[in-house]
Amino acid sequence: MSEFHSKIKTVEWIKTGELDGVSRMVDQTLIPYEYKKIDIKTAEQMYNAIKTMIVRGAPAIGISGAHGAALCAIELLKNNSGNFIQELKRGIEYINSSRPTAVNLSWALNEQLKIVDKGGSKEEITQALIENAIRLENEDIEINKKIGDYGAQIVPKGATILTHCNAGALATVGYGTALGVVRSAYAKDNTIQVFADETRPRQQGARITTFELVEDGIPVTLITDGMCSYFMKKGMIDVVVVGADRIAANGDSANKIGTYTVAIAAKYHNIPFYIAAPKSTIDMSIKTGDDIPIELRDEEEVTTINGKKICADGVKVINPSFDVTPNELIKGIITECGIFKPQELNKLFMKS
Amino acid sequence: MSEFHSKIKTVEWIKTGELDGVSRMVDQTLIPYEYKKIDIKTAEQMYNAIKTMIVRGAPAIGISGAHGAALCAIELLKNNSGNFIQELKRGIEYINSSRPTAVNLSWALNEQLKIVDKGGSKEEITQALIENAIRLENEDIEINKKIGDYGAQIVPKGATILTHCNAGALATVGYGTALGVVRSAYAKDNTIQVFADETRPRQQGARITTFELVEDGIPVTLITDGMCSYFMKKGMIDVVVVGADRIAANGDSANKIGTYTVAIAAKYHNIPFYIAAPKSTIDMSIKTGDDIPIELRDEEEVTTINGKKICADGVKVINPSFDVTPNELIKGIITECGIFKPQELNKLFMKS
Repeated sequence: MSEFHSKIKTVEWIKTGELDGVSRMVDQTLIPYEYKKIDIKTAEQMYNAIKTMIVRGAPAIGISGAHGAALCAIELLKNNSGNFIQELKRGIEYINSSRPTAVNLSWALNEQLKIVDKGGSKEEITQALIENAIRLENEDIEINKKIGDYGAQIVPKGATILTHCNAGALATVGYGTALGVVRSAYAKDNTIQVFADETRPRQQGARITTFELVEDGIPVTLITDGMCSYFMKKGMIDVVVVGADRIAANGDSANKIGTYTVAIAAKYHNIPFYIAAPKSTIDMSIKTGDDIPIELRDEEEVTTINGKKICADGVKVINPSFDVTPNELIKGIITECGIFKPQELNKLFMKS
Repeated sequence: MSEFHSKIKTVEWIKTGELDGVSRMVDQTLIPYEYKKIDIKTAEQMYNAIKTMIVRGAPAIGISGAHGAALCAIELLKNNSGNFIQELKRGIEYINSSRPTAVNLSWALNEQLKIVDKGGSKEEITQALIENAIRLENEDIEINKKIGDYGAQIVPKGATILTHCNAGALATVGYGTALGVVRSAYAKDNTIQVFADETRPRQQGARITTFELVEDGIPVTLITDGMCSYFMKKGMIDVVVVGADRIAANGDSANKIGTYTVAIAAKYHNIPFYIAAPKSTIDMSIKTGDDIPIELRDEEEVTTINGKKICADGVKVINPSFDVTPNELIKGIITECGIFKPQELNKLFMKS
């Protein structure tokens, strides 16, 4: 294992001076063609980076949001803003509006709001926001390694793991959630392998998951989204592990569009289906998946690939970016605190 | 309804002289960008046209095969072949090897073999093969209109019909099987609409189905393959109708990869799932879907879109072009002789 994942940080705070810094992130729109980092310097740049999916993946978006709050405070400090607290909160709200489905974004921004509400001088608050962003960033990798270690227990010897979208190092600060499970399992048993769904329309499975796994030397087979049932029927898939963008109190889990279809196919073939996600993805304020906001994205994501239209002019398009897998299709939710049945998430919160 | 479909012939025999002709076909690799016909003049050209999917769709491949047999006879006649019958049978076998899954190809070639076996002079056999090819070509449209009329009965008022791949005019000589059902239903009730799966890897849904339906003025919404369950859950899909490439005696149906996944999702949401196909797609010599040969196609169909690679180098790919939907997921098989339960196909053959 080339340990590619241990060398990368998807999003990283870079100190550039006293009370100054940038958020350095991998531009994921270029993967797998180019591995390039860009520096995000303002709240507005962060909003756009999240919105256009330069950074994507629920945990990575969360940390980016925390960085964005710190960047906002730095800007306000430099501009000697008259109403620092009010402007800062407005900036945080603005970043939070960049994408609606992944709860990790509002979770991380709420962590930053708590810092703001503790009060202090502008400088003290800015310093505290930077430190908190760095803390969350570092914690993310540790959390993912715990998820990986718990998750590895449910991977049978020599298993083929199907995953959808990319819940890897590049969806987090590092290591990954679903691919964290893969990495931990592979470290114990190098006969496992991965099948990766392409994940139309944005092809995170084809572009990013294959990139990560090839770099790490973990065997990966790319399939189109419609093929999952074919391979399940053939007995070639042992377990499904995917990430999540928001998990309701009852365990219903929003994840990248197409996940629900995979979960139904897994159920039909009696193949266990797991979600791997940090506790910060669980939104106990939402009772069921019906209340999770589903982002509708641009039609062009569906109609155009590599700059070329793939369909007739005049066709209508609906492009929901996520779907919700109901708890009855989920065998377990793998978190940094252990594996829980979707219906028993309250235990996870009593525990802490 | 602009009746686009009534103006096109996907594959058409063009007489070019006494005992001479060409098979004129729409080059479907260019749809939706260009609507262009090419002339196929030899058995070898026909083999390549089928293999590279210039012509595709089970019934269209069947008719193309019949044309190919006639072209082969014409070639042999022109070359004054010494062993006409033997060479002709070898040519028919060669065309039959171009694609394995759709039984319509071997069905049509068998219809031509019967002509060969009737005997006669080289000229008489060639003439009979041409006439039989034209007969099969003309019958195809009539068969599809009957399929459409029977199928229209199962489309509820104002329904949204989900279809996968393209089982339209361009998959047949004209009118279509699954899209024949759509056309007949739309003629009775112009409030129906279609959702079209993109159908990766070759995107026949995005490229060809949207093209046909936009041309005919029938409302069509393009979705990615993974989205079907999302829209089913929302109550936005009333019925699924797809084509087939080979139907076993027990009703198990091979169709374009991804169909099986859609059928499982339909079952989960209690949405009726129908196959629309001519009797020539039913292969009573094969007991169950397990025995249907599934074509594995080139990896590049999965890894490359519009000339650009979509994944990392070093990824493995398996590209089955078809999957089998078991009879338990199929509500009915819509044929030119009526609608049958998949388990009762023997009735269809007793009837004739």
